[in-house]
Amino acid sequence: MSGTASGATRQEQERSRVTRQKLMTAAIEVLAEQGWAGATTGAIAERAGVSRGACQHHFPTRTALVAAAVEHVSHQQVEELAQRAKSLPQSRRRVEPLLNLLYDIYAGPLFTAATHLWVAAVADAELKALLLPLETHVGREVHRLTVELLGLEEREREVRDAVRATLDLLRGLALANLLNDDTARRRKVLAHWARTLEAQLTPAPRDP
Amino acid sequence: MSGTASGATRQEQERSRVTRQKLMTAAIEVLAEQGWAGATTGAIAERAGVSRGACQHHFPTRTALVAAAVEHVSHQQVEELAQRAKSLPQSRRRVEPLLNLLYDIYAGPLFTAATHLWVAAVADAELKALLLPLETHVGREVHRLTVELLGLEEREREVRDAVRATLDLLRGLALANLLNDDTARRRKVLAHWARTLEAQLTPAPRDP
Repeated sequence: MSGTASGATRQEQERSRVTRQKLMTAAIEVLAEQGWAGATTGAIAERAGVSRGACQHHFPTRTALVAAAVEHVSHQQVEELAQRAKSLPQSRRRVEPLLNLLYDIYAGPLFTAATHLWVAAVADAELKALLLPLETHVGREVHRLTVELLGLEEREREVRDAVRATLDLLRGLALANLLNDDTARRRKVLAHWARTLEAQLTPAPRDP
Repeated sequence: MSGTASGATRQEQERSRVTRQKLMTAAIEVLAEQGWAGATTGAIAERAGVSRGACQHHFPTRTALVAAAVEHVSHQQVEELAQRAKSLPQSRRRVEPLLNLLYDIYAGPLFTAATHLWVAAVADAELKALLLPLETHVGREVHRLTVELLGLEEREREVRDAVRATLDLLRGLALANLLNDDTARRRKVLAHWARTLEAQLTPAPRDP
């Protein structure tokens, strides 16, 4: 293969990657705004500024596009969280800011899009079959990262249950937040939860 | 007014009450299955076995019907919970079964219907304006009842935050349950949280 041909291929691959990204981002936006019923392939392609033909070339079905979008954006958010968590203090005082960082995964269009998909899947077996493995996969990743960022040992049952409860709490807070920006209330709940986690999961420091 | 006329009026009132009930129950069912977009007045009237004209007579708009339905079914569930809670033991050991009873408010068609409405309201200002006061009202009622059933004093900040966190946790568990019946996982999380609440909110009993 000549250098020029290889360059052209790379350019083509890069264009293809950008188009896929645009489609996946648009899919999450349109899902968040219109729900599963409104998020047609046409509406997503239009939002992405991509022709319907190109959309179909990259993602043969709407289901394939939505699955890829949820997985891709989830991973992006998990990686972003891991990056941002590096600047947290290395002490017990990291628990509360860490909960606030974690919450950000559950705020924003991805969560709104996922909630639309979840409720639609109640009455749609095909959609449910698509979402369940995705949810399990992403859920495990977030769980693993949370255990790691809290500096805990996953093998202990108490740790497992506390981390599970934490992620369920964050999901519940995010659902309440769909309707109303209740940042003040959420801060109080997360502060309370952080104190609880600190007391449960880390040895109490001795008084100086 | 003669006795017969009064009897006829009572019969009419009773028929009217039954029709309203049927429409409200059908509204929650159709919302849970079809979402906000699919829950047209026609679809709800058909499910209830009521003519569209009669539906419009009782609830002039879809919005009025849905608001009445969410409020009515929420109150029903809160009252049912209060009744069922009467059979719980009067000791610290009531916390875990109480959490399981409370969870039932968040399981079932009402929660699925409400979640559909919440995500639809993200992009629908009118629907949001309808839901916010309803959500605040029902939320306060559930909060008050939870404080009472736990035998706590709402005035303490610690109690307020712990009860808030409990209800957010239950909401998050219910959202996860939409996709998958994860009863086993939920039991573990609720058992964990019950131990936490017991330790936080009730004085530890002395060893005998």
